[in-house]
Amino acid sequence: MSGANAVREDRLWQRHVDMARLGGTPKGGVNRQALSAEDAAARNLLASWAKARGFSIFTDAIGNLFVRREGSDAAALPVMSGSHMDSQPTGGRFDGMYGVLAAFEALEALEDAGVRTKRPVVAVAWTNEEGSRFQPGAMGSAVFAGHYALDDMLSAKDWDGVVLKDALASTLKAAPAPLSAGKPGFALDGYVEAHIEQGPRLENERKTIGVVTGIQGSRRYIVETAGEEAHAGTTPRAARKDAFAAATRIATAMYAATTDADDTLRFTIGRVDVQPGSPNTVPGKAAFTIDMRHPSNAVLETHEAKLKEIVASRAQPCAAKIERVTNVAPTDFDPKVIDLVRAKAQALKLSNMDMPSGAGHDAMHIARLCPAGMIFVPCERGISHNEAENATPADLAAGARVLVEVLEALANR
Amino acid sequence: MSGANAVREDRLWQRHVDMARLGGTPKGGVNRQALSAEDAAARNLLASWAKARGFSIFTDAIGNLFVRREGSDAAALPVMSGSHMDSQPTGGRFDGMYGVLAAFEALEALEDAGVRTKRPVVAVAWTNEEGSRFQPGAMGSAVFAGHYALDDMLSAKDWDGVVLKDALASTLKAAPAPLSAGKPGFALDGYVEAHIEQGPRLENERKTIGVVTGIQGSRRYIVETAGEEAHAGTTPRAARKDAFAAATRIATAMYAATTDADDTLRFTIGRVDVQPGSPNTVPGKAAFTIDMRHPSNAVLETHEAKLKEIVASRAQPCAAKIERVTNVAPTDFDPKVIDLVRAKAQALKLSNMDMPSGAGHDAMHIARLCPAGMIFVPCERGISHNEAENATPADLAAGARVLVEVLEALANR
Repeated sequence: MSGANAVREDRLWQRHVDMARLGGTPKGGVNRQALSAEDAAARNLLASWAKARGFSIFTDAIGNLFVRREGSDAAALPVMSGSHMDSQPTGGRFDGMYGVLAAFEALEALEDAGVRTKRPVVAVAWTNEEGSRFQPGAMGSAVFAGHYALDDMLSAKDWDGVVLKDALASTLKAAPAPLSAGKPGFALDGYVEAHIEQGPRLENERKTIGVVTGIQGSRRYIVETAGEEAHAGTTPRAARKDAFAAATRIATAMYAATTDADDTLRFTIGRVDVQPGSPNTVPGKAAFTIDMRHPSNAVLETHEAKLKEIVASRAQPCAAKIERVTNVAPTDFDPKVIDLVRAKAQALKLSNMDMPSGAGHDAMHIARLCPAGMIFVPCERGISHNEAENATPADLAAGARVLVEVLEALANR
Repeated sequence: MSGANAVREDRLWQRHVDMARLGGTPKGGVNRQALSAEDAAARNLLASWAKARGFSIFTDAIGNLFVRREGSDAAALPVMSGSHMDSQPTGGRFDGMYGVLAAFEALEALEDAGVRTKRPVVAVAWTNEEGSRFQPGAMGSAVFAGHYALDDMLSAKDWDGVVLKDALASTLKAAPAPLSAGKPGFALDGYVEAHIEQGPRLENERKTIGVVTGIQGSRRYIVETAGEEAHAGTTPRAARKDAFAAATRIATAMYAATTDADDTLRFTIGRVDVQPGSPNTVPGKAAFTIDMRHPSNAVLETHEAKLKEIVASRAQPCAAKIERVTNVAPTDFDPKVIDLVRAKAQALKLSNMDMPSGAGHDAMHIARLCPAGMIFVPCERGISHNEAENATPADLAAGARVLVEVLEALANR
């Protein structure tokens, strides 16, 4: 029996149902924020399944939780798969959790099929991918990859002032696991992460498997305009410095400048603040956020220059400035891993398409350490970060079948 | 000695200084909201000055406070002048208060000059013109004019749930005055209100007196757009229903459609709300307020039609609607009062110009009862509804001189 044949759709679905109870919301979603009691409960549940199958578990100093199935060569570097178990405050049942459960299903399928791999295969649940309780997100994988300093992350605080170090200690007390020595991070031979797409493309194009080629780069900006508050009834237009009128001119020009022919650039103004916010006062200040993403860093660079030119030229008679607040470079996954995912999907006769990831994932950090890739499965109407998030048992199982085949191939390299 | 010659600039200024202490703020403005303890203190101070001069005081069921100087004909209808003593939460020392103190200065000047008028001259402090604590504004004058029902106003509540009737009872307990019988409102022969311009025109054109021809009409609207929340990283532009992008298209077209050649139309988007307000989520809802004013109702009507057409044509693929929430018709002041104000300013060799009022005032309600007009004086840089609001003692006195001459003429008709 192959690993793919040993994947059990019913078992994988039931594990999602069991996990969805931990932090489950009345609307059918989950609220299982990082290092909460619900997170600890999810860790305990995963650990109990691991122990029942004879897999070893361990954790590291940032709380990443590992489940290890040994290989035949004790000295060989492991291959790894996983994602995260924390959720948005009003999150869904599949974002992150699917990647953890698909990796665990892969371990179980290898076990059930009696497949002996050369390398160990490790399933991982990364700490705090969402970043909704503690900033920044993708924290566990970034610390593992050496991209963020452990001590900086341990001193992060949530909105109530709780220090991450204390929340982590409480979580590990409630969900104990042997602690690996030293700083987080160890050498890997490969990494593959399964995830729901969180967008509508697979569903729209009726494909089951997304062969993820990379994660698009993402930059965030804040644009601020400054004018002068004035009485809406008495101040002539010529005497006004209307900060929202200036913001509107800037936004209009930006929407036009970011309308690319192939609809690949993502440009979003998501938060808008106008002060003083009184109906009969000409706004003195306005601010808005920009989220801009593209798989090509050069395209992002070109468009950033356009945004700056627009801010400099369209604000008069107001003042305006644009500040870049984050810049995450695009991730290109390893061509061999991409080819392997595509080949295994084809071998399993699963419809598939190459696509970049629009959202960020833990894989973007791990791709710095070793050859990495991702597998997407469809989610209903592309809805995610939403309690209504949904996916079918068949699609989830299909993704797990591709995953176990890819992991087996990597683990025998 | 004429009434105008008896106006004392130092006395009028000192009264402003004394009143500015009641609710005075560290930044030099005032916070003296309607029917507050500070409002009661201002009423007591005005009453003490009135008593010292032998004028009678009385109040009515909505708390308007009257100071009456008798005329020679006890049966003749009075002429009235005044404004309001309540302020915005971060208001200035002159908005409203100047009109009350100029009227009181006129009474004192007539007294000092030994001028005997045929008709009584009444100074008034209208209750709750600002409408910042209790809605709606210009309440006292509107009830006096029969435009709002007394009982409706008495049941108004402030943000803390305090009922106006109770706040009024507390105020009148702290600042007692004889209550006039029956419902508010009595017949008048004429009304003239002095006020700071609250705009920059007099200062820009170096004129001392604004001969106010009327109060422009004012309409308020709320525009709402509805799209669909989506992930900023994964959702292609073609699949988006971005409520803020739609709002931006609408706002841009509206700014263009309201750019009149003579810069008389006032169009303001003052409050903007975008939901869910997350940088990495495509907005699902947006809303903004419109404040539109013009002296001609026909112009307002034409532009309202344009706004509706824009909302109907620019929102796709989002839904959008526009709702008119208030519609205050323009007020045309009485030509004889306008001519009288202009003639008296000219006789006093004060530079002057005809102008409409951009802001609403109590005079707009009283103009329904009797021939009415207004006198504007400059305020620094047109800044009002602001703690930095400022005006010069000389300009304030100039306006009071015109006022006393106008009142004397009206009171001898």
